[in-house]
Amino acid sequence: MSEPNAAPVPRLSPEGSDAYRIDPNALEAFVADMLRRTGVPAEDAAIAAASLVGADVRGMNSHGMIRLPVYVRRLKAGGFNPVTTVNVVREGPSTALIDGGNGLGSVLTTRAMDLAVQKARSTGIAAVGIRNSNHNGENAFYVQRAVAQDMIGIATTNGSPIMPVWGGRTPLTGPLPIAIGVPAKRHRPIVLDAALGMSSRGKILYYAEKGMELPEGWLVDAEGEPTRDPNWVRKGGWILPIGGHKGFGLILACEILSGLLTGGSFGTELTNLYDDLDTPQRNGHFVAAIDIAAFTDVASFKARMDEYIEMMKASELVPGTDEILMPGEIEFRKADDARANGIVLARNVMDEVLAAARELGLETGETA
Amino acid sequence: MSEPNAAPVPRLSPEGSDAYRIDPNALEAFVADMLRRTGVPAEDAAIAAASLVGADVRGMNSHGMIRLPVYVRRLKAGGFNPVTTVNVVREGPSTALIDGGNGLGSVLTTRAMDLAVQKARSTGIAAVGIRNSNHNGENAFYVQRAVAQDMIGIATTNGSPIMPVWGGRTPLTGPLPIAIGVPAKRHRPIVLDAALGMSSRGKILYYAEKGMELPEGWLVDAEGEPTRDPNWVRKGGWILPIGGHKGFGLILACEILSGLLTGGSFGTELTNLYDDLDTPQRNGHFVAAIDIAAFTDVASFKARMDEYIEMMKASELVPGTDEILMPGEIEFRKADDARANGIVLARNVMDEVLAAARELGLETGETA
Repeated sequence: MSEPNAAPVPRLSPEGSDAYRIDPNALEAFVADMLRRTGVPAEDAAIAAASLVGADVRGMNSHGMIRLPVYVRRLKAGGFNPVTTVNVVREGPSTALIDGGNGLGSVLTTRAMDLAVQKARSTGIAAVGIRNSNHNGENAFYVQRAVAQDMIGIATTNGSPIMPVWGGRTPLTGPLPIAIGVPAKRHRPIVLDAALGMSSRGKILYYAEKGMELPEGWLVDAEGEPTRDPNWVRKGGWILPIGGHKGFGLILACEILSGLLTGGSFGTELTNLYDDLDTPQRNGHFVAAIDIAAFTDVASFKARMDEYIEMMKASELVPGTDEILMPGEIEFRKADDARANGIVLARNVMDEVLAAARELGLETGETA
Repeated sequence: MSEPNAAPVPRLSPEGSDAYRIDPNALEAFVADMLRRTGVPAEDAAIAAASLVGADVRGMNSHGMIRLPVYVRRLKAGGFNPVTTVNVVREGPSTALIDGGNGLGSVLTTRAMDLAVQKARSTGIAAVGIRNSNHNGENAFYVQRAVAQDMIGIATTNGSPIMPVWGGRTPLTGPLPIAIGVPAKRHRPIVLDAALGMSSRGKILYYAEKGMELPEGWLVDAEGEPTRDPNWVRKGGWILPIGGHKGFGLILACEILSGLLTGGSFGTELTNLYDDLDTPQRNGHFVAAIDIAAFTDVASFKARMDEYIEMMKASELVPGTDEILMPGEIEFRKADDARANGIVLARNVMDEVLAAARELGLETGETA
């Protein structure tokens, strides 16, 4: 614990009164050092740090530094195994099943996608399932690894029960995410990463803070009755799936691929990231890679993607819209800005990260 | 044309004043005979008839007999090629790309799914793309072929442009469907087949007929402004995707898999089923099969599916709900009833089918 910092504390430039501007590369190195001090091997710590900081870089702060303190607490308490072993328990030419042994979700899913890409290169399409994993952050991170190899990447996961199934009011699933990445040529790849709920908890809390009513169809109260009162999100209400029963069906498909097909856990068997910190979460994940070259010429596919993107961008616009945006385009713009000018992080979030770092024996100097 | 009927006209038992009750097997044989008379080979006619009548059996009348007259007109006009050739233009261990040569969508997609199942049996997962196809009916039909082989089936398609992309008001895509089928043990398989729009045209026309206002978020007017007036669906308004930009992203994924990955047509290149009857529609489709045995023990998977279905069905219910229904469960119940007691079809729909049959030289006797 008296070992000196392997990476210096990133410079925290005040940004207004309640935020810092921080160089993402310096932050990533510092986060990796923190993770190494919990026993995570260097290569895995680099992956987990890239996943967490990458979310903040893309403006998806809900999956970034805000999660790091609980990751550290779980690593110390045994709720995450610091040493992740990729144990392939079943394998075919185009498939593999990994038992994650309570390792880090981001490390397991990265390895799984890389294995899917490798298999898809031989057979055209491949899928890898993971069981006994944990929180794995932003699924956009994994599908982009396939995109970088001229493949279409697909990723989903299950999660602890915070949402009922359609018609019910017992929490059995969540607004599970599905991510799909597709390369283009001149244009940025299409990177969809959508939780299948009508809105996020964070957005609804923003409505509550501003005293605004919600649009119809986002939230129900604790009895399951439709409500426009955002405060119900804190009082046992829940967010509805997109498209009602249709979104429920898609969520169920994510749960089946992640939890059932993998022989892993499902529904009430999963533990929330913030509960029982010494208990494995038991998440399952499912990733797939489709080799574009198995279907068509890659260069012509990418040129046609550009053509379709331009066809869409040339649309006449609805009132109040400035331009047609592709899935992931806002995040690419935010990432460009963050890489050039630093990421802006809430002061209270970074202060908690630094407190966690000090507990790990790191020098953090004067802050705030 | 003077050849006698190969299958008798099904008995049309009056059901109220504006419907008939009909034996589905007799109807299927009759429809197959109609299709054969346009030049469709017997085996393909049987597939197309099973797909069309199967939709009515499941209560999905929008994809059943209502489509048959335009199928016949397209077959006669050259807009559908009666002789479907499954031309595999690219193939790998887990993939194939079929050029449909303007053949029948249902025949092509059936063959594609069977090929995907066969390949998945060897490699664990397989996907088949189809280009230069046509309207292929209900995607639930194809995923159930995979389910019958203890596999998870996935199917999607693109379609003629009737919906703008998110933020636009130029029609460039549609409320494209995604279908997923998963076997269980004691319980019926889960068969999700969801168009990714907030509602169907038919349902919105029903609101218009009853003089009812629509819920928020279903429809916009011709300028793209939100409206609760269902009549806009007939006046240049359009149905919104489920979950706004999220549903748009999922629709885009369906379009990319069906139209771009296949080297086929996309966006404005497609022709509507009811327009230009001598012109190929140029739809693309994408199907995949996942062999459950490649990931886990099939019997234990099915038992766990039952367990999860029962966990969901044991939920406390929201007000106004009688039971938790799985995706596809209503359709299985309707199919049980239709197989036992006959399907109920609107008189005007059946009258158009019989008129088309007479034009093909079939005897239809006295009707109505």
